[in-house]
Amino acid sequence: MEQLSANRSHGGTQGVYRHASAVTGTDMTFSVFVPDHAPGAKLPVLWFLSGLTCTHANVTEKGEYRAACAEQGVILVAPDTSPRGEGVPNDEAYDFGQGAGFYVDATEAPWATHFKMRSYIEQELPALIEAEFPADMARQGITGHSMGGHGALTIALRNPARFRSVSAFSPIVAPSRVPWGEKALAGYLGADRAAWRQYDAVALIEDGARVPELLVDTGTADQFLEVQLKPELLEAACRTAGIALTQRLQPGYDHSYYFVSTFLGDHVAWHAERLKA
Amino acid sequence: MEQLSANRSHGGTQGVYRHASAVTGTDMTFSVFVPDHAPGAKLPVLWFLSGLTCTHANVTEKGEYRAACAEQGVILVAPDTSPRGEGVPNDEAYDFGQGAGFYVDATEAPWATHFKMRSYIEQELPALIEAEFPADMARQGITGHSMGGHGALTIALRNPARFRSVSAFSPIVAPSRVPWGEKALAGYLGADRAAWRQYDAVALIEDGARVPELLVDTGTADQFLEVQLKPELLEAACRTAGIALTQRLQPGYDHSYYFVSTFLGDHVAWHAERLKA
Repeated sequence: MEQLSANRSHGGTQGVYRHASAVTGTDMTFSVFVPDHAPGAKLPVLWFLSGLTCTHANVTEKGEYRAACAEQGVILVAPDTSPRGEGVPNDEAYDFGQGAGFYVDATEAPWATHFKMRSYIEQELPALIEAEFPADMARQGITGHSMGGHGALTIALRNPARFRSVSAFSPIVAPSRVPWGEKALAGYLGADRAAWRQYDAVALIEDGARVPELLVDTGTADQFLEVQLKPELLEAACRTAGIALTQRLQPGYDHSYYFVSTFLGDHVAWHAERLKA
Repeated sequence: MEQLSANRSHGGTQGVYRHASAVTGTDMTFSVFVPDHAPGAKLPVLWFLSGLTCTHANVTEKGEYRAACAEQGVILVAPDTSPRGEGVPNDEAYDFGQGAGFYVDATEAPWATHFKMRSYIEQELPALIEAEFPADMARQGITGHSMGGHGALTIALRNPARFRSVSAFSPIVAPSRVPWGEKALAGYLGADRAAWRQYDAVALIEDGARVPELLVDTGTADQFLEVQLKPELLEAACRTAGIALTQRLQPGYDHSYYFVSTFLGDHVAWHAERLKA
Protein backbone atom coordinates (compact mmCIF):
# COMPACT_ATOMS: atom_id res chain seq x y z
CA MET A 1 0.00 0.00 0.00
CA GLU A 2 1.31 3.40 -1.02
CA GLN A 3 0.30 6.67 0.66
CA LEU A 4 -0.50 9.25 -2.02
CA SER A 5 -1.25 12.11 0.37
CA ALA A 6 -1.83 12.87 4.03
CA ASN A 7 -3.33 16.12 5.31
CA ARG A 8 -4.06 17.12 8.85
CA SER A 9 -7.73 18.10 9.08
CA HIS A 10 -10.28 18.54 11.87
CA GLY A 11 -8.07 16.92 14.46
CA GLY A 12 -7.17 13.86 12.45
CA THR A 13 -5.39 12.72 9.30
CA GLN A 14 -7.04 12.52 5.91
CA GLY A 15 -5.03 10.09 3.81
CA VAL A 16 -5.32 8.81 0.25
CA TYR A 17 -3.82 5.43 -0.59
CA ARG A 18 -3.23 3.15 -3.57
CA HIS A 19 -2.66 -0.58 -3.66
CA ALA A 20 -2.50 -3.37 -6.21
CA SER A 21 -5.78 -5.24 -5.92
CA ALA A 22 -5.61 -8.98 -6.55
CA VAL A 23 -9.40 -9.09 -6.86
CA THR A 24 -9.81 -6.44 -9.57
CA GLY A 25 -6.39 -6.98 -11.12
CA THR A 26 -5.80 -3.22 -11.09
CA ASP A 27 -4.42 -0.54 -8.83
CA MET A 28 -7.19 0.78 -6.58
CA THR A 29 -7.26 4.14 -4.78
CA PHE A 30 -9.18 4.89 -1.60
CA SER A 31 -9.21 7.45 1.21
CA VAL A 32 -9.18 6.95 4.98
CA PHE A 33 -9.77 9.56 7.68
CA VAL A 34 -8.28 8.61 11.03
CA PRO A 35 -9.13 10.82 14.03
CA ASP A 36 -6.41 11.45 16.59
CA HIS A 37 -6.54 8.66 19.16
CA ALA A 38 -4.67 7.19 22.10
CA PRO A 39 -1.66 5.02 21.23
CA GLY A 40 -2.80 1.46 20.61
CA ALA A 41 -6.50 2.37 20.45
CA LYS A 42 -8.69 0.75 17.78
CA LEU A 43 -11.49 2.88 16.36
CA PRO A 44 -14.81 1.86 14.82
CA VAL A 45 -15.01 2.08 11.02
CA LEU A 46 -17.66 3.67 8.83
CA TRP A 47 -17.63 2.77 5.13
CA PHE A 48 -18.86 5.34 2.61
CA LEU A 49 -19.63 3.95 -0.85
CA SER A 50 -19.89 6.55 -3.61
CA GLY A 51 -22.22 6.95 -6.56
CA LEU A 52 -22.05 6.95 -10.35
CA THR A 53 -19.11 8.86 -11.89
CA CYS A 54 -17.45 9.31 -8.49
CA THR A 55 -14.07 8.27 -7.15
CA HIS A 56 -12.97 8.37 -3.49
CA ALA A 57 -12.31 12.08 -4.03
CA ASN A 58 -15.88 13.41 -4.20
CA VAL A 59 -16.87 12.58 -0.65
CA THR A 60 -13.34 13.17 0.62
CA GLU A 61 -13.35 16.76 -0.64
CA LYS A 62 -17.05 17.64 -0.39
CA GLY A 63 -18.54 15.31 2.21
CA GLU A 64 -17.94 17.42 5.35
CA TYR A 65 -17.65 14.32 7.56
CA ARG A 66 -14.33 14.93 9.28
CA ALA A 67 -15.56 17.14 12.12
CA ALA A 68 -18.15 14.52 13.11
CA CYS A 69 -15.72 11.61 12.70
CA ALA A 70 -13.13 13.37 14.88
CA GLU A 71 -15.72 14.20 17.52
CA GLN A 72 -17.02 10.63 17.56
CA GLY A 73 -13.69 8.87 17.10
CA VAL A 74 -14.77 7.05 13.94
CA ILE A 75 -12.58 6.11 10.96
CA LEU A 76 -14.18 6.77 7.55
CA VAL A 77 -13.12 4.71 4.53
CA ALA A 78 -14.09 5.86 1.02
CA PRO A 79 -13.30 3.38 -1.79
CA ASP A 80 -13.43 4.00 -5.52
CA THR A 81 -16.54 2.95 -7.47
CA SER A 82 -14.90 0.62 -10.00
CA PRO A 83 -11.59 -0.62 -11.33
CA ARG A 84 -9.95 1.85 -13.70
CA GLY A 85 -7.06 2.02 -16.12
CA GLU A 86 -6.02 1.38 -19.67
CA GLY A 87 -6.48 -2.37 -19.67
CA VAL A 88 -9.92 -2.14 -18.05
CA PRO A 89 -13.01 -2.27 -20.27
CA ASN A 90 -15.17 0.85 -20.30
CA ASP A 91 -18.34 2.25 -21.76
CA GLU A 92 -18.90 5.75 -23.00
CA ALA A 93 -22.04 6.15 -20.88
CA TYR A 94 -21.63 7.64 -17.41
CA ASP A 95 -23.76 4.90 -15.86
CA PHE A 96 -21.89 1.79 -16.97
CA GLY A 97 -18.26 0.65 -16.91
CA GLN A 98 -15.57 2.65 -15.15
CA GLY A 99 -17.04 4.80 -12.38
CA ALA A 100 -20.14 2.61 -12.31
CA GLY A 101 -19.18 -0.74 -10.80
CA PHE A 102 -22.52 -1.12 -8.95
CA TYR A 103 -20.79 -3.17 -6.21
CA VAL A 104 -21.32 -6.46 -8.08
CA ASP A 105 -19.01 -9.32 -9.07
CA ALA A 106 -19.56 -9.25 -12.83
CA THR A 107 -20.05 -12.57 -14.61
CA GLU A 108 -20.41 -11.34 -18.18
CA ALA A 109 -17.58 -10.70 -20.63
CA PRO A 110 -15.69 -8.40 -20.89
CA TRP A 111 -16.52 -7.17 -17.37
CA ALA A 112 -15.97 -10.34 -15.37
CA THR A 113 -12.18 -10.03 -15.40
CA HIS A 114 -11.88 -6.75 -13.46
CA PHE A 115 -15.33 -5.68 -12.23
CA LYS A 116 -15.32 -7.51 -8.88
CA MET A 117 -16.39 -4.65 -6.64
CA ARG A 118 -18.46 -6.90 -4.36
CA SER A 119 -15.46 -9.03 -3.46
CA TYR A 120 -13.24 -5.99 -3.30
CA ILE A 121 -15.47 -4.18 -0.79
CA GLU A 122 -16.57 -7.26 1.14
CA GLN A 123 -13.25 -9.10 1.33
CA GLU A 124 -10.05 -7.54 0.06
CA LEU A 125 -10.29 -3.94 1.22
CA PRO A 126 -11.49 -4.76 4.77
CA ALA A 127 -8.47 -7.04 5.22
CA LEU A 128 -6.18 -4.24 4.09
CA ILE A 129 -7.89 -1.71 6.38
CA GLU A 130 -7.55 -4.08 9.33
CA ALA A 131 -3.87 -4.66 8.59
CA GLU A 132 -2.85 -1.06 7.95
CA PHE A 133 -5.05 1.17 10.14
CA PRO A 134 -6.07 1.34 13.83
CA ALA A 135 -9.45 -0.12 12.93
CA ASP A 136 -11.69 -2.23 15.17
CA MET A 137 -13.30 -4.49 12.57
CA ALA A 138 -15.75 -5.80 15.17
CA ARG A 139 -17.38 -2.35 15.00
CA GLN A 140 -18.22 -1.52 11.39
CA GLY A 141 -20.99 0.58 9.92
CA ILE A 142 -21.73 1.28 6.27
CA THR A 143 -23.36 4.05 4.28
CA GLY A 144 -23.27 5.41 0.76
CA HIS A 145 -24.83 7.70 -1.81
CA SER A 146 -27.04 6.76 -4.78
CA MET A 147 -25.34 3.75 -6.44
CA GLY A 148 -23.26 3.67 -3.25
CA GLY A 149 -26.44 3.70 -1.15
CA HIS A 150 -27.47 0.62 -3.12
CA GLY A 151 -24.04 -0.81 -2.36
CA ALA A 152 -24.32 -0.09 1.36
CA LEU A 153 -27.81 -1.57 1.68
CA THR A 154 -27.08 -4.73 -0.30
CA ILE A 155 -23.70 -5.40 1.33
CA ALA A 156 -25.21 -4.96 4.81
CA LEU A 157 -28.22 -7.13 3.99
CA ARG A 158 -25.93 -9.93 2.77
CA ASN A 159 -23.58 -9.53 5.77
CA PRO A 160 -25.80 -8.58 8.70
CA ALA A 161 -23.40 -9.96 11.31
CA ARG A 162 -20.57 -7.75 10.10
CA PHE A 163 -22.27 -4.36 10.23
CA ARG A 164 -23.74 -2.94 13.41
CA SER A 165 -25.29 -0.03 11.52
CA VAL A 166 -26.36 0.81 7.97
CA SER A 167 -27.65 3.98 6.40
CA ALA A 168 -27.90 5.52 2.95
CA PHE A 169 -28.29 8.77 1.02
CA SER A 170 -30.62 8.75 -2.01
CA PRO A 171 -30.09 5.01 -2.55
CA ILE A 172 -31.14 3.04 -5.60
CA VAL A 173 -33.23 0.67 -3.49
CA ALA A 174 -34.52 -1.64 -6.22
CA PRO A 175 -32.08 -1.65 -9.14
CA SER A 176 -33.89 -4.57 -10.81
CA ARG A 177 -36.84 -2.28 -11.39
CA VAL A 178 -35.25 1.01 -12.54
CA PRO A 179 -33.33 2.03 -15.68
CA TRP A 180 -29.89 2.56 -14.07
CA GLY A 181 -30.05 -0.82 -12.38
CA GLU A 182 -31.58 -2.80 -15.22
CA LYS A 183 -28.84 -1.60 -17.56
CA ALA A 184 -26.02 -2.30 -15.11
CA LEU A 185 -27.24 -5.65 -13.77
CA ALA A 186 -28.01 -6.96 -17.26
CA GLY A 187 -24.61 -5.76 -18.48
CA TYR A 188 -22.58 -7.19 -15.62
CA LEU A 189 -24.66 -10.27 -14.75
CA GLY A 190 -26.58 -11.22 -17.89
CA ALA A 191 -30.25 -11.55 -18.64
CA ASP A 192 -31.25 -13.99 -15.89
CA ARG A 193 -32.99 -11.77 -13.37
CA ALA A 194 -32.72 -14.38 -10.64
CA ALA A 195 -29.01 -13.56 -10.42
CA TRP A 196 -29.83 -9.91 -9.86
CA ARG A 197 -31.71 -10.39 -6.61
CA GLN A 198 -28.60 -10.57 -4.42
CA TYR A 199 -27.79 -7.08 -5.70
CA ASP A 200 -31.19 -5.50 -5.05
CA ALA A 201 -31.99 -4.32 -1.51
CA VAL A 202 -35.75 -4.69 -1.88
CA ALA A 203 -35.40 -8.16 -3.44
CA LEU A 204 -32.97 -9.23 -0.69
CA ILE A 205 -35.50 -8.18 1.96
CA GLU A 206 -38.28 -9.95 0.05
CA ASP A 207 -36.07 -13.06 0.02
CA GLY A 208 -35.58 -12.94 3.79
CA ALA A 209 -32.48 -10.82 4.42
CA ARG A 210 -32.76 -8.72 7.56
CA VAL A 211 -31.04 -5.88 9.38
CA PRO A 212 -32.51 -4.47 12.57
CA GLU A 213 -32.84 -0.89 11.39
CA LEU A 214 -32.08 1.49 8.55
CA LEU A 215 -31.60 5.27 8.27
CA VAL A 216 -32.20 6.75 4.80
CA ASP A 217 -32.15 10.39 3.71
CA THR A 218 -33.37 11.42 0.27
CA GLY A 219 -34.12 14.91 -1.05
CA THR A 220 -37.57 15.78 -2.34
CA ALA A 221 -35.98 17.82 -5.16
CA ASP A 222 -33.76 14.89 -6.21
CA GLN A 223 -33.99 14.73 -9.99
CA PHE A 224 -33.74 10.93 -9.86
CA LEU A 225 -36.32 10.40 -7.12
CA GLU A 226 -39.23 9.00 -9.08
CA VAL A 227 -37.53 7.13 -11.89
CA GLN A 228 -34.35 5.71 -10.31
CA LEU A 229 -34.59 5.84 -6.51
CA LYS A 230 -38.20 4.93 -5.62
CA PRO A 231 -37.91 5.19 -1.82
CA GLU A 232 -41.50 3.94 -1.53
CA LEU A 233 -40.36 0.45 -2.59
CA LEU A 234 -37.94 0.26 0.35
CA GLU A 235 -40.60 1.54 2.69
CA ALA A 236 -43.06 -1.14 1.58
CA ALA A 237 -40.45 -3.92 1.82
CA CYS A 238 -39.35 -2.83 5.31
CA ARG A 239 -42.93 -2.56 6.51
CA THR A 240 -43.69 -6.10 5.37
CA ALA A 241 -40.42 -7.43 6.80
CA GLY A 242 -40.63 -5.58 10.11
CA ILE A 243 -37.38 -3.67 9.55
CA ALA A 244 -37.29 -0.38 11.48
CA LEU A 245 -36.77 2.09 8.65
CA THR A 246 -36.25 5.78 9.39
CA GLN A 247 -36.74 7.33 5.97
CA ARG A 248 -36.44 11.10 5.90
CA LEU A 249 -37.53 12.98 2.80
CA GLN A 250 -35.57 16.22 3.08
CA PRO A 251 -37.54 19.11 1.61
CA GLY A 252 -35.88 20.95 -1.26
CA TYR A 253 -32.65 18.94 -1.27
CA ASP A 254 -31.33 17.45 -4.50
CA HIS A 255 -28.98 14.60 -5.44
CA SER A 256 -25.71 16.53 -5.04
CA TYR A 257 -23.03 16.65 -2.37
CA TYR A 258 -24.66 19.89 -1.18
CA PHE A 259 -27.30 17.47 0.11
CA VAL A 260 -25.00 14.67 1.27
CA SER A 261 -22.73 17.08 3.17
CA THR A 262 -25.72 18.56 4.99
CA PHE A 263 -26.62 15.24 6.62
CA LEU A 264 -23.43 13.14 6.60
CA GLY A 265 -22.41 14.50 10.00
CA ASP A 266 -25.80 13.35 11.34
CA HIS A 267 -25.23 9.90 9.89
CA VAL A 268 -21.75 9.69 11.42
CA ALA A 269 -23.24 10.46 14.84
CA TRP A 270 -26.06 7.94 14.29
CA HIS A 271 -23.58 5.22 13.34
CA ALA A 272 -21.25 6.15 16.22
CA GLU A 273 -24.07 5.74 18.72
CA ARG A 274 -24.56 2.17 17.51
CA LEU A 275 -20.86 1.36 16.98
CA LYS A 276 -19.88 2.55 20.44
CA ALA A 277 -22.90 1.08 22.28
CA MET B 1 -26.95 38.90 -13.03
CA GLU B 2 -27.55 35.31 -14.08
CA GLN B 3 -28.00 32.41 -11.66
CA LEU B 4 -25.85 29.48 -12.81
CA SER B 5 -26.92 27.07 -10.06
CA ALA B 6 -28.79 26.94 -6.77
CA ASN B 7 -28.61 24.02 -4.34
CA ARG B 8 -30.29 23.63 -1.02
CA SER B 9 -27.64 22.91 1.61
CA HIS B 10 -27.41 23.06 5.40
CA GLY B 11 -30.68 24.94 5.76
CA GLY B 12 -29.95 27.60 3.16
CA THR B 13 -29.30 28.13 -0.53
CA GLN B 14 -25.88 27.87 -2.14
CA GLY B 15 -26.00 29.82 -5.38
CA VAL B 16 -23.49 30.54 -8.13
CA TYR B 17 -23.95 33.66 -10.24
CA ARG B 18 -22.42 35.40 -13.25
CA HIS B 19 -22.59 39.02 -14.27
CA ALA B 20 -20.96 41.37 -16.76
CA SER B 21 -18.47 43.44 -14.78
CA ALA B 22 -17.99 47.02 -15.95
CA VAL B 23 -14.85 47.28 -13.84
CA THR B 24 -12.99 44.26 -15.24
CA GLY B 25 -14.64 44.36 -18.65
CA THR B 26 -15.34 40.64 -18.39
CA ASP B 27 -18.00 38.28 -17.11
CA MET B 28 -17.32 37.49 -13.46
CA THR B 29 -18.57 34.46 -11.51
CA PHE B 30 -19.11 34.33 -7.74
CA SER B 31 -20.98 32.25 -5.18
CA VAL B 32 -23.32 33.34 -2.39
CA PHE B 33 -24.70 31.22 0.45
CA VAL B 34 -27.90 32.61 1.95
CA PRO B 35 -29.25 30.94 5.10
CA ASP B 36 -32.99 30.59 5.48
CA HIS B 37 -34.34 33.74 7.09
CA ALA B 38 -37.54 35.56 7.94
CA PRO B 39 -39.22 37.40 5.05
CA GLY B 40 -37.76 40.88 4.75
CA ALA B 41 -34.82 40.15 7.06
CA LYS B 42 -31.36 41.43 6.12
CA LEU B 43 -28.40 39.28 7.12
CA PRO B 44 -24.80 40.22 7.86
CA VAL B 45 -22.29 39.43 5.11
CA LEU B 46 -18.94 37.65 5.33
CA TRP B 47 -16.61 37.95 2.33
CA PHE B 48 -14.22 35.09 1.58
CA LEU B 49 -11.38 35.94 -0.80
CA SER B 50 -9.59 32.97 -2.33
CA GLY B 51 -5.96 32.23 -3.09
CA LEU B 52 -3.73 31.62 -6.09
CA THR B 53 -5.17 29.33 -8.79
CA CYS B 54 -8.60 29.33 -7.15
CA THR B 55 -12.02 30.38 -8.40
CA HIS B 56 -15.16 30.80 -6.28
CA ALA B 57 -15.56 27.02 -6.52
CA ASN B 58 -12.74 25.88 -4.22
CA VAL B 59 -14.14 27.31 -1.00
CA THR B 60 -17.71 26.74 -2.15
CA GLU B 61 -17.11 23.01 -2.54
CA LYS B 62 -14.44 22.38 0.10
CA GLY B 63 -14.79 25.18 2.67
CA GLU B 64 -17.33 23.55 5.03
CA TYR B 65 -18.75 26.94 6.04
CA ARG B 66 -22.46 26.42 5.38
CA ALA B 67 -23.39 24.77 8.68
CA ALA B 68 -21.84 27.66 10.63
CA CYS B 69 -23.32 30.33 8.34
CA ALA B 70 -26.80 28.80 8.67
CA GLU B 71 -26.46 28.54 12.43
CA GLN B 72 -25.27 32.13 12.72
CA GLY B 73 -27.49 33.62 10.01
CA VAL B 74 -24.58 34.97 7.97
CA ILE B 75 -24.37 35.30 4.18
CA LEU B 76 -21.03 34.19 2.67
CA VAL B 77 -19.85 35.70 -0.63
CA ALA B 78 -16.97 34.05 -2.52
CA PRO B 79 -15.69 36.01 -5.56
CA ASP B 80 -13.29 34.83 -8.24
CA THR B 81 -9.59 35.71 -7.96
CA SER B 82 -9.16 37.53 -11.27
CA PRO B 83 -10.84 38.35 -14.55
CA ARG B 84 -10.78 35.46 -17.01
CA GLY B 85 -11.54 34.76 -20.63
CA GLU B 86 -10.10 34.78 -24.10
CA GLY B 87 -9.53 38.50 -24.38
CA VAL B 88 -7.85 38.70 -20.98
CA PRO B 89 -4.05 38.63 -20.76
CA ASN B 90 -2.54 35.68 -18.96
CA ASP B 91 0.79 34.26 -17.88
CA GLU B 92 1.79 30.63 -17.91
CA ALA B 93 2.90 30.76 -14.28
CA TYR B 94 0.33 29.80 -11.64
CA ASP B 95 1.17 32.86 -9.56
CA PHE B 96 0.58 35.65 -12.06
CA GLY B 97 -2.22 36.58 -14.46
CA GLN B 98 -5.54 34.74 -14.48
CA GLY B 99 -6.24 33.15 -11.10
CA ALA B 100 -3.73 35.49 -9.46
CA GLY B 101 -5.25 38.98 -9.43
CA PHE B 102 -3.77 39.82 -6.00
CA TYR B 103 -6.70 42.18 -5.31
CA VAL B 104 -4.94 45.15 -6.91
CA ASP B 105 -5.96 47.68 -9.56
CA ALA B 106 -3.19 47.07 -12.09
CA THR B 107 -1.52 50.07 -13.67
CA GLU B 108 0.95 48.31 -15.98
CA ALA B 109 0.21 47.16 -19.53
CA PRO B 110 -1.22 44.75 -20.53
CA TRP B 111 -2.84 44.10 -17.14
CA ALA B 112 -4.34 47.53 -16.44
CA THR B 113 -7.30 47.01 -18.78
CA HIS B 114 -8.93 44.07 -16.97
CA PHE B 115 -7.06 43.40 -13.71
CA LYS B 116 -9.06 45.72 -11.46
CA MET B 117 -9.80 43.32 -8.61
CA ARG B 118 -9.47 46.01 -5.94
CA SER B 119 -12.26 48.10 -7.45
CA TYR B 120 -14.25 44.99 -8.24
CA ILE B 121 -14.18 43.73 -4.64
CA GLU B 122 -14.36 47.13 -2.97
CA GLN B 123 -16.98 48.79 -5.18
CA GLU B 124 -18.77 46.90 -7.90
CA LEU B 125 -19.51 43.54 -6.31
CA PRO B 126 -20.73 44.97 -2.97
CA ALA B 127 -23.23 47.14 -4.86
CA LEU B 128 -24.49 44.06 -6.72
CA ILE B 129 -24.72 42.02 -3.50
CA GLU B 130 -26.68 44.80 -1.84
CA ALA B 131 -29.06 45.05 -4.78
CA GLU B 132 -29.66 41.35 -5.34
CA PHE B 133 -29.44 39.62 -1.94
CA PRO B 134 -30.96 40.10 1.55
CA ALA B 135 -27.67 41.60 2.74
CA ASP B 136 -27.21 44.14 5.50
CA MET B 137 -24.21 46.05 4.17
CA ALA B 138 -23.84 47.87 7.48
CA ARG B 139 -22.67 44.57 8.92
CA GLN B 140 -19.81 43.21 6.82
CA GLY B 141 -16.85 41.06 7.75
CA ILE B 142 -14.04 39.83 5.54
CA THR B 143 -11.68 36.87 5.48
CA GLY B 144 -9.64 34.97 2.93
CA HIS B 145 -6.94 32.39 2.31
CA SER B 146 -3.31 32.96 1.27
CA MET B 147 -3.42 35.57 -1.54
CA GLY B 148 -7.03 36.05 -0.41
CA GLY B 149 -5.87 36.53 3.18
CA HIS B 150 -3.65 39.30 1.83
CA GLY B 151 -6.72 40.66 0.05
CA ALA B 152 -8.87 40.54 3.18
CA LEU B 153 -6.27 42.24 5.37
CA THR B 154 -5.42 45.02 2.90
CA ILE B 155 -9.03 45.74 1.93
CA ALA B 156 -10.05 45.93 5.60
CA LEU B 157 -7.07 48.11 6.51
CA ARG B 158 -7.94 50.55 3.72
CA ASN B 159 -11.67 50.50 4.60
CA PRO B 160 -11.81 50.15 8.38
CA ALA B 161 -15.24 51.80 8.65
CA ARG B 162 -16.81 49.27 6.30
CA PHE B 163 -15.76 46.05 8.00
CA ARG B 164 -16.67 45.23 11.56
CA SER B 165 -14.46 42.15 11.57
CA VAL B 166 -11.46 40.83 9.64
CA SER B 167 -9.65 37.52 9.76
CA ALA B 168 -7.39 35.47 7.52
CA PHE B 169 -6.07 31.98 6.82
CA SER B 170 -2.36 31.64 5.95
CA PRO B 171 -2.23 35.21 4.60
CA ILE B 172 0.62 36.73 2.61
CA VAL B 173 1.07 39.51 5.16
CA ALA B 174 3.92 41.42 3.51
CA PRO B 175 3.83 40.83 -0.25
CA SER B 176 6.46 43.55 -0.85
CA ARG B 177 9.00 41.36 0.90
CA VAL B 178 8.29 37.86 -0.45
CA PRO B 179 8.69 36.24 -3.88
CA TRP B 180 4.97 35.79 -4.72
CA GLY B 181 4.23 39.40 -3.87
CA GLU B 182 7.31 40.98 -5.40
CA LYS B 183 6.57 39.28 -8.70
CA ALA B 184 2.88 40.20 -8.69
CA LEU B 185 3.18 43.77 -7.44
CA ALA B 186 6.05 44.56 -9.83
CA GLY B 187 4.10 43.03 -12.70
CA TYR B 188 0.80 44.74 -12.01
CA LEU B 189 2.05 48.04 -10.53
CA GLY B 190 5.56 48.59 -11.88
CA ALA B 191 8.92 48.99 -10.21
CA ASP B 192 8.11 51.88 -7.86
CA ARG B 193 7.76 50.18 -4.50
CA ALA B 194 6.00 53.19 -2.98
CA ALA B 195 2.94 52.21 -5.03
CA TRP B 196 3.02 48.73 -3.51
CA ARG B 197 2.47 49.84 0.09
CA GLN B 198 -1.31 50.19 -0.21
CA TYR B 199 -1.34 46.49 -1.16
CA ASP B 200 0.81 45.24 1.70
CA ALA B 201 -0.85 44.68 5.10
CA VAL B 202 2.32 45.19 7.11
CA ALA B 203 3.21 48.35 5.16
CA LEU B 204 -0.33 49.70 5.58
CA ILE B 205 -0.06 49.22 9.35
CA GLU B 206 3.39 50.82 9.36
CA ASP B 207 1.86 53.75 7.46
CA GLY B 208 -0.87 54.21 10.07
CA ALA B 209 -3.81 52.06 8.93
CA ARG B 210 -5.67 50.49 11.84
CA VAL B 211 -8.32 47.90 12.59
CA PRO B 212 -9.23 47.11 16.19
CA GLU B 213 -8.44 43.39 16.05
CA LEU B 214 -7.40 40.55 13.77
CA LEU B 215 -7.81 36.76 13.87
CA VAL B 216 -5.27 34.79 11.83
CA ASP B 217 -4.83 31.02 11.53
CA THR B 218 -1.79 29.52 9.83
CA GLY B 219 -0.57 25.92 9.83
CA THR B 220 2.87 25.03 11.15
CA ALA B 221 3.27 22.49 8.32
CA ASP B 222 2.37 25.08 5.66
CA GLN B 223 4.92 24.65 2.88
CA PHE B 224 4.85 28.41 2.22
CA LEU B 225 5.19 29.51 5.85
CA GLU B 226 8.77 30.71 5.94
CA VAL B 227 9.29 32.04 2.43
CA GLN B 228 5.91 33.52 1.43
CA LEU B 229 3.72 34.01 4.51
CA LYS B 230 6.01 35.25 7.31
CA PRO B 231 3.41 35.57 10.07
CA GLU B 232 6.09 37.04 12.35
CA LEU B 233 6.06 40.26 10.28
CA LEU B 234 2.35 40.77 10.98
CA GLU B 235 2.90 40.02 14.63
CA ALA B 236 5.65 42.65 14.90
CA ALA B 237 3.63 45.28 13.02
CA CYS B 238 0.53 44.67 15.17
CA ARG B 239 2.56 44.79 18.36
CA THR B 240 4.06 48.15 17.41
CA ALA B 241 0.69 49.53 16.26
CA GLY B 242 -1.31 48.24 19.21
CA ILE B 243 -3.61 46.09 17.05
CA ALA B 244 -5.06 43.14 18.99
CA LEU B 245 -3.84 40.23 16.88
CA THR B 246 -4.91 36.69 17.71
CA GLN B 247 -2.49 34.65 15.65
CA ARG B 248 -2.90 30.90 16.00
CA LEU B 249 -0.22 28.62 14.61
CA GLN B 250 -2.09 25.36 14.12
CA PRO B 251 0.21 22.38 14.68
CA GLY B 252 0.60 20.04 11.73
CA TYR B 253 -1.80 21.82 9.39
CA ASP B 254 -0.73 22.70 5.84
CA HIS B 255 -1.83 25.23 3.21
CA SER B 256 -4.73 23.22 1.79
CA TYR B 257 -8.49 23.37 2.17
CA TYR B 258 -8.15 20.46 4.61
CA PHE B 259 -6.75 23.19 6.87
CA VAL B 260 -9.12 26.01 5.87
CA SER B 261 -12.21 23.81 6.29
CA THR B 262 -11.10 22.81 9.78
CA PHE B 263 -11.23 26.39 11.07
CA LEU B 264 -13.58 28.28 8.73
CA GLY B 265 -16.58 27.43 10.91
CA ASP B 266 -14.71 28.96 13.88
CA HIS B 267 -14.04 32.10 11.85
CA VAL B 268 -17.71 32.36 10.81
CA ALA B 269 -18.73 32.22 14.49
CA TRP B 270 -16.05 34.77 15.43
CA HIS B 271 -17.24 37.17 12.72
CA ALA B 272 -20.89 36.58 13.62
CA GLU B 273 -20.22 37.54 17.22
CA ARG B 274 -18.91 40.90 16.03
CA LEU B 275 -21.41 41.40 13.20
CA LYS B 276 -24.39 40.72 15.44
CA ALA B 277 -23.09 42.61 18.48
